[in-house]
Amino acid sequence: MPTKPSKELVVVANPHPDRVYDVEMRCPEFTTLCPMTGQPDFATITILYQPAEYIVELKSLKLYLWSFRDEGHFHEDVTNIILNDFVRAAQPRYARVTGEFNVRGGISTKVTVEYRRSEEPSVAG
Amino acid sequence: MPTKPSKELVVVANPHPDRVYDVEMRCPEFTTLCPMTGQPDFATITILYQPAEYIVELKSLKLYLWSFRDEGHFHEDVTNIILNDFVRAAQPRYARVTGEFNVRGGISTKVTVEYRRSEEPSVAG
Amino acid sequence: MPTKPSKELVVVANPHPDRVYDVEMRCPEFTTLCPMTGQPDFATITILYQPAEYIVELKSLKLYLWSFRDEGHFHEDVTNIILNDFVRAAQPRYARVTGEFNVRGGISTKVTVEYRRSEEPSVAG
Amino acid sequence: MPTKPSKELVVVANPHPDRVYDVEMRCPEFTTLCPMTGQPDFATITILYQPAEYIVELKSLKLYLWSFRDEGHFHEDVTNIILNDFVRAAQPRYARVTGEFNVRGGISTKVTVEYRRSEEPSVAG
Amino acid sequence: MPTKPSKELVVVANPHPDRVYDVEMRCPEFTTLCPMTGQPDFATITILYQPAEYIVELKSLKLYLWSFRDEGHFHEDVTNIILNDFVRAAQPRYARVTGEFNVRGGISTKVTVEYRRSEEPSVAG
Amino acid sequence: MPTKPSKELVVVANPHPDRVYDVEMRCPEFTTLCPMTGQPDFATITILYQPAEYIVELKSLKLYLWSFRDEGHFHEDVTNIILNDFVRAAQPRYARVTGEFNVRGGISTKVTVEYRRSEEPSVAG
Amino acid sequence: MPTKPSKELVVVANPHPDRVYDVEMRCPEFTTLCPMTGQPDFATITILYQPAEYIVELKSLKLYLWSFRDEGHFHEDVTNIILNDFVRAAQPRYARVTGEFNVRGGISTKVTVEYRRSEEPSVAG
Amino acid sequence: MPTKPSKELVVVANPHPDRVYDVEMRCPEFTTLCPMTGQPDFATITILYQPAEYIVELKSLKLYLWSFRDEGHFHEDVTNIILNDFVRAAQPRYARVTGEFNVRGGISTKVTVEYRRSEEPSVAG
Amino acid sequence: MPTKPSKELVVVANPHPDRVYDVEMRCPEFTTLCPMTGQPDFATITILYQPAEYIVELKSLKLYLWSFRDEGHFHEDVTNIILNDFVRAAQPRYARVTGEFNVRGGISTKVTVEYRRSEEPSVAG
Amino acid sequence: MPTKPSKELVVVANPHPDRVYDVEMRCPEFTTLCPMTGQPDFATITILYQPAEYIVELKSLKLYLWSFRDEGHFHEDVTNIILNDFVRAAQPRYARVTGEFNVRGGISTKVTVEYRRSEEPSVAG
Repeated sequence: MPTKPSKELVVVANPHPDRVYDVEMRCPEFTTLCPMTGQPDFATITILYQPAEYIVELKSLKLYLWSFRDEGHFHEDVTNIILNDFVRAAQPRYARVTGEFNVRGGISTKVTVEYRRSEEPSVAG
Repeated sequence: MPTKPSKELVVVANPHPDRVYDVEMRCPEFTTLCPMTGQPDFATITILYQPAEYIVELKSLKLYLWSFRDEGHFHEDVTNIILNDFVRAAQPRYARVTGEFNVRGGISTKVTVEYRRSEEPSVAG
Repeated sequence: MPTKPSKELVVVANPHPDRVYDVEMRCPEFTTLCPMTGQPDFATITILYQPAEYIVELKSLKLYLWSFRDEGHFHEDVTNIILNDFVRAAQPRYARVTGEFNVRGGISTKVTVEYRRSEEPSVAG
Repeated sequence: MPTKPSKELVVVANPHPDRVYDVEMRCPEFTTLCPMTGQPDFATITILYQPAEYIVELKSLKLYLWSFRDEGHFHEDVTNIILNDFVRAAQPRYARVTGEFNVRGGISTKVTVEYRRSEEPSVAG
Repeated sequence: MPTKPSKELVVVANPHPDRVYDVEMRCPEFTTLCPMTGQPDFATITILYQPAEYIVELKSLKLYLWSFRDEGHFHEDVTNIILNDFVRAAQPRYARVTGEFNVRGGISTKVTVEYRRSEEPSVAG
Repeated sequence: MPTKPSKELVVVANPHPDRVYDVEMRCPEFTTLCPMTGQPDFATITILYQPAEYIVELKSLKLYLWSFRDEGHFHEDVTNIILNDFVRAAQPRYARVTGEFNVRGGISTKVTVEYRRSEEPSVAG
Repeated sequence: MPTKPSKELVVVANPHPDRVYDVEMRCPEFTTLCPMTGQPDFATITILYQPAEYIVELKSLKLYLWSFRDEGHFHEDVTNIILNDFVRAAQPRYARVTGEFNVRGGISTKVTVEYRRSEEPSVAG
Repeated sequence: MPTKPSKELVVVANPHPDRVYDVEMRCPEFTTLCPMTGQPDFATITILYQPAEYIVELKSLKLYLWSFRDEGHFHEDVTNIILNDFVRAAQPRYARVTGEFNVRGGISTKVTVEYRRSEEPSVAG
Repeated sequence: MPTKPSKELVVVANPHPDRVYDVEMRCPEFTTLCPMTGQPDFATITILYQPAEYIVELKSLKLYLWSFRDEGHFHEDVTNIILNDFVRAAQPRYARVTGEFNVRGGISTKVTVEYRRSEEPSVAG
Repeated sequence: MPTKPSKELVVVANPHPDRVYDVEMRCPEFTTLCPMTGQPDFATITILYQPAEYIVELKSLKLYLWSFRDEGHFHEDVTNIILNDFVRAAQPRYARVTGEFNVRGGISTKVTVEYRRSEEPSVAG
């Protein structure tokens, strides 16, 4: 039974909601399409967050990142979109998304975007 | 005479209780079971702490980490559980537990949890 | 003007056909689909060959490797298919294709396939 | 639905049985028990083989390596056992199993065992 | 149709102008001429910036860095010039340019120059 | 004429006593005995200090570290003892001793201890 | 007084002409132009040779490699040209030129070309 | 109950005596004394062997290598002595001992010694 | 025409005197003599500074570092001397000199010395 | 009492003259002068040999390599000279000298020279 890509990030209850702690998930298998040329782009996406009420289920993150495979996005935009989607689903205290894009035209690009819930102090780790 | 896994973390008197200093123990041989699939998970567990009255005996830490071998735990949960058990046994000034879990579904996960005794200033090293 | 993936490997005349020499092309951006689950697989494909009358044009190789993006193949099979296609197009003295596939189920897989024109001696470099 | 460890290595038809080629599978998540002390041992198992009529299905290899988790074996013995089981199931032209066992008593141990079908010439890659 | 080097850095609208985030572009293919000896110099140029209204188009950055190929510049000067040109075109919140120049006379040189819009707080990542 | 281990750390006048600066000495050849089992332990000892009136003579440090070869000490204790001895002899503005002990029972241990003369500000480098 | 690029490779008498030995010179600062697009290409050129009557003067090799800066060449061709020029000037027993070209279109290319004087046995080191 | 160093290498029956295979044991914790100065020397000892009737028990190897701690030996001599002792105890088909000694006087030394039973063909792995 | 070592550090006008920026020069080819034994010592010298009115000319730095080749200096002293000479010549806002000295007696030594013009804020990069 | 550089390589009796074995000594602290410019050159010298009747005393090798400090030599020549001197003193079965010279003009150079006593078979390790 083949699985399918999905835009839905599934969350479950954080088993330790009272503690501020870090979860970092690193996926070196992100690919999307260049909106100018239609050619594939490749990146490593790293998401570091501090959960509040929810933690993000790992398998749904895999399906979520897969969902960009056939879409066209600029590097700066897609990194922001992932952060926005992640924050909407997980409602974390803090989140940071890093996209490390492979060399194009002799230049590699790394985009780092972060979110902090307004009432939160600075990141722990 | 075979040894056995144990949930008991043995402590001994800290020979230098007046000084704030760091002890970091790194174990790349942690394994547990996935509570969803029952399949083995593997991680490197690193415990950094600042002892107060006690230091943790190294052999008992080995047996303690071994005790998770046949249990099912989620990544975020087990890292918090190890911190809680460690703090209860060692009653340290500060403790931080990091679990670096191997790739599953193309994604690796690192969980970092910390504890600070309420009266303590920030970490030394 | 968007480019498109293509199964055609374009060759041009080898500027030094009388000399036996090695050309190695390494592409860490290969992706295909698992024929069992439909999920993306990722690999680094390395092609080492000794040209005879032709050398393979680099841009057409990029479009050729891209052409597997939406196809389903087993690791062992797709590495052999790339070698077969390459040999048919380039008609080299010697060719070796290596596919280094990312971790799945805690196991990484590397497939190495080679071809030697019957009248050729062993590889140079 | 939890999966289970299994001693059965599943094989499927080699899609390119006429070509001699290499398949290398590397699993850094192998664990067994020391038959003397009952304590866990950890190793990276690497299997390189040249398929004949069959190739080994990756998921069954994962379940097979898992099956040693609760068994007690010496380093030299378990590496040979894996080779024997693999050869019996896959009937390859050539196979080599390497077990790189973690430090015990300040010493790390690597065991390398190989098999060659009597009629085969030496390994390709 | 051959492309040409260009001093013009093309910018496009920042798709997320309200968020402070980092973009880092690394080019290991920078070359210029030594103004004393006329001999080629080689460097890796890294540009980290926090976009405001604009982001810099990657291809134009490639053509811009190419434009130094036949010019003569001292290490300290050219790194400052790149920052000045970048700030003028991109009008970022923050920008930092690093030039890591290859060994000359047994000594390697790294120049780091930064700009911060007067009203901005300190860098995010 | 054989040299001998010695507990005496020889100091000489700091040639630049008015400047706060760092001296770091790293010795990967430290060995002592486990007080429980009598078996050898191995560590890398790193001493970072900011000299005041004195600097420590390198050869005497070698003989001093050698003096632990036949003594039995716990990891946490011996690192503190080295700091205490060093501070007593060198009377530095600041000193930090790190002991990185080799794997025992699958776990490596790093102990970091520091001293600051009460009137000193924080470390320079 | 500025130096100039030059196609002339200067040789001097081999001080040990009776011994077969290896000289390897590695230059990570090679750049040329793509004959299709006119854009710069970058490579590391490594020359390994066994001198006969002559050795190649290092400074002239630098000027020689510089001479390709404004010329257009395909990867496979320029590596062969360097070997041909080197063999003509140095008349070595053996020579091998390797060109490791930077990523273009997600693919890096390495070209290895060798020459052996007909009466020579195989390479020493 | 403290353990003691011992010159006796304990062997047990090889569970797979009919197969030629490699066992490599690496100990980075070897120390002895310089017979000239009496000062400690440090080395990594690696033993690769092909067992015949016996394999060497790991714990006894640890105690054996420990037995050199208070003895004085030259680098070349002690590496040969270890090989001789190992061959006498294990009676292997093949054995190779490598001693990588730490820097002394700005020079590091590596000694490699091997033994082959007269009737054996060349090493497998 | 042979060049000569020189104690004179040549400076030229800083082309961007109004900006605070970093210049780091790293020389792994520093050698001097031990004042006790007369034997050669070797180090990597790294100079990081923030220029004010002047920048230091690279070739003169090479000749300056060369000038220590036949002099005898202790590690701590020579690192301070280089900083003093550099500050006197370049009159920078900030300067830091690091000397990483090779292993002697099993111990490597790193000396870090810094200078800050009294009116300057803290270092940029 | 300062030591002095010396051209004399001291040998002592090989304690195991009947066995063919390898001794490799690596010195990253070799420096000489460029005979053209008079400027210092730096290299790592590695000597691998198979002793016959003699082994070379380590301290004398240090003094011997030191003796080149104030002499002018070309890379190819000095590597051959070291081999010739070594063979004359040690009269080994086999010897190989490698000189890895630091970057000059953007190019690093490695020279490998070997000697084999006419009656010897090929090298062991």
